[in-house]
This record gives sequence, C-alpha cells and structure tokens, in this order.
Amino acid sequence: MEDSVPRPHPSVTGAFGRWWEERRRAAPLTVTPVSFADLHQWHFAPEGGDLVHSTGGFFAVAGMRRFEADGTVLDQPVISQPEIGMLGILVKRLGGVPHALMQAKAEPGNVGSVQLSPTVQATRSNYTRVHRGHGTRHLEHFSGDPRGRVLVDSLQSEQGAWFWRKRNRNVLVETTAEVADHPDYHWVELDELRRLLRTDHLVNMDARSVLGTAPLFRPPPDSDDPFVRALARSYAEAPAGHDDEQEVRTWLNDAKSRCASHARLLPLSGIDGWTRTDGEIGDDDGTAFRIIAVRVTATGREVPGWSQPLLAPRSESVATFLVREIDGILHLLVQARAEPGLHDLLELAPTVHRHYPGEAPGPFDALSESQDPARVRYDARHSEEGGRFHRAITRHRVIDVGAEVPVDVPESYRWLTVRRLRTLARQGYYVNVEARSLLACLHSLW
Amino acid sequence: MEDSVPRPHPSVTGAFGRWWEERRRAAPLTVTPVSFADLHQWHFAPEGGDLVHSTGGFFAVAGMRRFEADGTVLDQPVISQPEIGMLGILVKRLGGVPHALMQAKAEPGNVGSVQLSPTVQATRSNYTRVHRGHGTRHLEHFSGDPRGRVLVDSLQSEQGAWFWRKRNRNVLVETTAEVADHPDYHWVELDELRRLLRTDHLVNMDARSVLGTAPLFRPPPDSDDPFVRALARSYAEAPAGHDDEQEVRTWLNDAKSRCASHARLLPLSGIDGWTRTDGEIGDDDGTAFRIIAVRVTATGREVPGWSQPLLAPRSESVATFLVREIDGILHLLVQARAEPGLHDLLELAPTVHRHYPGEAPGPFDALSESQDPARVRYDARHSEEGGRFHRAITRHRVIDVGAEVPVDVPESYRWLTVRRLRTLARQGYYVNVEARSLLACLHSLW
Repeated sequence: MEDSVPRPHPSVTGAFGRWWEERRRAAPLTVTPVSFADLHQWHFAPEGGDLVHSTGGFFAVAGMRRFEADGTVLDQPVISQPEIGMLGILVKRLGGVPHALMQAKAEPGNVGSVQLSPTVQATRSNYTRVHRGHGTRHLEHFSGDPRGRVLVDSLQSEQGAWFWRKRNRNVLVETTAEVADHPDYHWVELDELRRLLRTDHLVNMDARSVLGTAPLFRPPPDSDDPFVRALARSYAEAPAGHDDEQEVRTWLNDAKSRCASHARLLPLSGIDGWTRTDGEIGDDDGTAFRIIAVRVTATGREVPGWSQPLLAPRSESVATFLVREIDGILHLLVQARAEPGLHDLLELAPTVHRHYPGEAPGPFDALSESQDPARVRYDARHSEEGGRFHRAITRHRVIDVGAEVPVDVPESYRWLTVRRLRTLARQGYYVNVEARSLLACLHSLW
Repeated sequence: MEDSVPRPHPSVTGAFGRWWEERRRAAPLTVTPVSFADLHQWHFAPEGGDLVHSTGGFFAVAGMRRFEADGTVLDQPVISQPEIGMLGILVKRLGGVPHALMQAKAEPGNVGSVQLSPTVQATRSNYTRVHRGHGTRHLEHFSGDPRGRVLVDSLQSEQGAWFWRKRNRNVLVETTAEVADHPDYHWVELDELRRLLRTDHLVNMDARSVLGTAPLFRPPPDSDDPFVRALARSYAEAPAGHDDEQEVRTWLNDAKSRCASHARLLPLSGIDGWTRTDGEIGDDDGTAFRIIAVRVTATGREVPGWSQPLLAPRSESVATFLVREIDGILHLLVQARAEPGLHDLLELAPTVHRHYPGEAPGPFDALSESQDPARVRYDARHSEEGGRFHRAITRHRVIDVGAEVPVDVPESYRWLTVRRLRTLARQGYYVNVEARSLLACLHSLW
C-alpha cells in the first residue's frame, strides 16, 4: 500500500516548517493490508459476527439497517464506539500572542501518515488509564483540578454515515501553566494555524472539528476585499432577522419531527448487500466503502506495531458551503440533513454533502461544482480520522454564489451567519463534522 | 380497577372550577385489566417477543440490558417509542392578561382519569395525520405557516428508567389569532395555572414538562418572606460564580466522560429476571414494575374504546430538590444522574430521585425526608404520563435546608439558580423530566 506522502507545501515554512519536516521523517508508519484472520486481537464474534477487539474495548464493526421514508431498507457495516473520547487543544499566550500546542500524530489511514492533531486526542480507554498512572500526555490540562480556563467544551457527533452514534468531547483550554517540551508537540501561532488550513491533508479532522467550534482570539482585520469585509461582519455581528436562534431551533425541530427515516444496529452477519472475503467486506454495488484489515509497523514508537480494521471509502467525499452576502453580512447556506448514525437524526450540514457518487442529487449540486476563480473562495482536500478511516478524503469548498441563490430557499435549507452557526456548534449535536470542518477552513480566508 | 378520583381541591374554584368539575364528570374512562391475549391489535412479535401494535406504530414494549460500571448486568422491559411527539401550550392575552389554553384530557393510567393537559398532546402519528385531513385540534398554531410567536421549542427526554430514548417536543406559542371554543379546552390565567400546580394529580406530566421550560410572563412579586425574595432573585439574576454556563457544561461533560455504564435494547423474550403470565410481566424481585394490559371504555368519545399495555410501577417515586440561599439567591441542588434509557447517558436531575425502594441510597436521602413545616416548601403528588404508565405517582418535594448543606458538595452534585437550570432546560436534553416537573412546581411558591 503506497503511502502517497503529499509534497511539502510552500506555506509550511519557518520554525514550524522545520519541525514539521523533521516529524514527518521521524515517525513514518508502514501500513500493509492483511486478511481478517491475520488481525491480532481482533475477531468476528461467534454470535452475530461483529468484528470486535478481544478486550471488548476500542471499537467494533457492527451492522446498521436504515429504514427510509419511502420504504427503502438499506444495510451497511458501521463503526460502533460508545465511549466519549477527548479532543483537546491547549492554548497559551507566548509573548502575548496566542499559540496552540499541536501534535504531529501518525495514523494508519491518513494521507501522508503524519498530520497536525490536537494536543490531546484520546479515547476513553486512554483517558481513564491516567488513574492507573500511565497518562496521556498533557491530559492534565483538560481534566486536572484545577485545569486551565475552559473556553469551549462540547460533545460533538462524527460521521453519521459511518459511525453509530459516535461522539467526542471537543475542548479548548487556555493555560498560563508551564508546559514541558516534547518533540511531537509544537506551539503554533493561531494566525499561522489559520493559514495552514489552506494546505491539503495537513490539519487532521479532530483538530478541524475543535477549531470549528473555538472562539477566535483575534477578529478578522479590515480589508479592501468586500468578501472579507462581509465575512468579518458574519463572525462579529448579531444577525439581521434571518437567523434568530429560537427560529433556527424551531426550523430544525420541524425537520426532525418530519423525518420519517430511522436506523438501528443489527449483527454484522445479518446485513444484506455486502460480501465478505478473506481481506475485505465490500458493498456489492461497489459504490460505498470496504472494511479492510491492516497491519501497522511504526518506527520510533513505544508500541512497535499493531493491526486493526479500517473503513475505506471507494471515492472522495464532497463538502461545500454556498455563501452569499445578505445585507452586507456573509451568510452560509446550511442544510438540515438526516444521517443514519447521528445522535439525534439530523444536524446542520454543508449545502452540498456527498459521500458516494450514487447519492440522490440535491438542488445545489451544479452550483457547488463551479470552477470560476471569482467564486471559488476555498478548495482543499482534507483527511477524515486516520485511526478509523483509510484514505477517506473530503474535498472542502466554499463557493460565493452571490444573488444567484435567492434568500428564500427550500425548507430543508437556511442562510445562517458564521456567528450563529458557531454559537449553535458550541451547544453540541447541532453542527455535523463536515460543517465544523468547513467552519475551521473559513478561518483561513483572510 | 377502582378509579380513586381525588376529591375536588378547595383551590379549584370559580369559572375554572366549574368547567373542570363538568369535564371530570363528562369524560370518565373505565379501565379494566385484561390478559395480553385479549388485547386488540397488540401481540407479542413472533421474532424476539416484543409487545407491538399491529400497525407497527404507537409504541412497543421491548427489552433493555444495562451494564453497570461495577460489572452488574440488569434487564428490564422498556417502552420504545422512536417518534417525536408534540407537547404544545398555546398562550394568548385576554384583556391584556396572559392565559394558557389547557385541555381536559382523560388517560387510562391517570389518577383521577381527567387531568389538565397541554393544548396539543400528540404523537407523530396524530401529527402527520393532519396532512390527510383529520387534524389534531389546535395543531395549526404550532405547525402552521405562519404559526404564532414561538417562545420555547426544545426536544426533551422523558423517563430514562422506563423509556428507551423517548423524546418529545416541548413548545409554547403566543398567538393573537382567533381560537374557536371547544368544551374540552379552557383559557386558564397563568397566575391561576401556577396556583393549580399545588394540587395533587391535577396538572399532567406533559403540561408540567412544558411549563418547566417556559418563560414567566410576570416575575415573582415583592414579598416579606425572605424565601420568596431569594426565589425571585433566583429567577431573575445572573448567578454569582457558582454556575457559569460553560462551567456547568464542563462539569456535566466530565460526568458523562466518567460514566462507565451503558445500555442497549434487546428482544423482550431475552430478558432475565422477569416473569410473564397471562396478564402481566413482572420483576421477580417484586420491587420495580409490571407491564399490564387494560381495556379502556370511554363515554362521549369518537373512539368508543381501545386496549393497550401500560407500565405499572410497584411503588411511589420521589423527586426532591434540596434548596438553600447562597449570597441572597435561592439555589437548587442538582445531580448529574445516569439513567439507562436517556438520550445521552445522563441529565440534570433533582437532588433525590428514586423510583424503587431498593435503589442505592444517596448522600441527601435523609434530609429529603424532612417533615419540618419550616423546611418543606412544596409537597404534592403528581401523575406520570397516563397514556403509558398506570398510577405512576411521583411525590414532588422542595426542602429548604439552609446552611446545613454546604456550598461544596460531592462531584456529582452542583448548586444552580432557577435561571441557570431553566436556560439549560430550554436547550434540550439537559434537564430530566422529574427536574422539569419540579421547576414547574416552583412557580407555585409565591
């Protein structure tokens, strides 16, 4: 399995660039496909056939059955991981300037192996191990007493297409304490971190998710560009009528009440339309994804290697926000979108959000594919969580459609300001992971 | 099955009292226990043995398995009802004074048969039927376009001990539209509705739930009673340090992250420790509850009768808030409490919250049993949802413990103001149904 390391990007320079190149060279993972029988400590449970770890921990690959409103029934494998993990970014002012302590973390499914990760990215199994004396590095800043100043702390869902009711805690803490140096960690100025979000496959999904809910330490500056001025107002100002919080809540509750689709777990051995071979479980249509097994060899790690299943999508996903100015304030066109594995049926999603080519078309697909440089404000490819997904790539786009899309939109869509969407995101279970990721990418647009 | 209609309470007087007595006499239900085999349109599913309705709608009685942190595994029947129902109270100013349109609604499990219910209390099956032309009365004020002014709209969990991830939409709408009269509905002045909450078994669970999240139309008045003054400040003022919203969120997320218990559905035929006879499914310990079957005969209804299962607790539940003044502001001692059927593991609960005599004791049980009239600020018995539960009675208490309970409390407890708890309640899935019900009862304390 070749590892297609992306070329260093011109924006990755200076002290950060030197640390980053050194880390990329120091911590490679070799990822080799193996058969399920060759997985160490993983097996198909005798009853039900779920792919489980021998400790009962980590995660499991189970089955999910979706009942659509039109009577369609669709089965698929799903990653079941009931524990709440911790995604925490530590911030500290160095010379008065806010910096985030970012981690160079290798994951087997990442494009490029090493990506820029939160200070702490830990499952509950890691998290609770701390009480037995083998701590996750820097966890004390997020769970200690006293911990730093908590600026953001919310529970957030992750991919509702691939996870069964997964959620992680997204936390941003500001500290004034001494923090010990370690080669895997680097203090990145927040302004630099913003700019790094323009680079493909550099900032990992967990970091993007936290940054999407986090407060800005510095507001967008004055600009001659009307787009940037409208964006700055969208971060700052109370919105004008279109997106009162109670109205947004009511609109979303209307959508949840209308939603007639639902899903439930079922044993992996009971799913229809998927075929298991020695080395993969794939959909017979060949459009969705495969469950594969890999052996991972790490150099320079305490754990020399391990093996695990991964979910490997068959194609690239797309997440696009159409945006436009309304009354001088940039608005994002959000969608109330049902996903079978979400915690509560549906969440706010990007205007266009597609995992597989075969999915039902939406009203804004054509506009989202614009190649007009005057409209395409953001266009980059990022990886989804490399500890669970293999080369899961989402193309992130922000397209300025101006008045071509009217203020009145179909009932599943709504124009919201950045400020409103970020406020809802901080409440948890409102904004899906693809939309949070795009919210983080917006930070890079000035 | 005798129907133990409570005697009319002296507080139920005037125009409301006359309407109420007339309704109680006009709409009695006769409730007769039957065997499961005599249920019409209900049967045990051949596969798994869940007790289901022949349409697949309404609700089902399934099984639930709880895995406790100490390794204990406990099974029980559970009511599974995935649809989102609507609980809506319509408010209108009559002569400038806010009134709520309340419904006299008979339910088979209620103590007293008829209780005071929200304007709309409808399952999704009712709710969507409106599109086929047989509407739920007054639903247009909550789902029409334009509807009235939405003051509250949140999704809320219900009993996590008895329901599997049940949630209902709690809505309060103010209208200026004409509303047609109907004998089952009465405009109740909000001040009178507050006072009626002191009466046993009068205001039903659904109405209490909505009122617990609703804004007050009139603040508590000046009072000579220091308790009422502290209570008024608790509604009104920004709290002083003890309960910053971000801190409360972090405290609750800490508790969720620590929580090692979880639960899952299983087929009803697979549960251990319960015995099914012709007419009931009961726990072998004889402490928890029974699932029973009843035939209901109604006079003066369009539907002359029906039959259904009900969950019948074996004993009375207790929900108590200990309260005290801190810095002149009344604070409520809330508990972060796990319940197996809740939507997200745990929610804020009353200080003491007990369904069965055998449950593990808590640190505040003794204080909550105070009979000291100087401490007992509220003490009334209310019914849980009479459409699902048979004579499920919860004793609601508010006990003023003063400085006997310190400001520092065990980590699962926290002192919150009424204002903070009501703000969290409006966000949904934060405050459990027993705590919402007690929040409504607090309205009656001035």
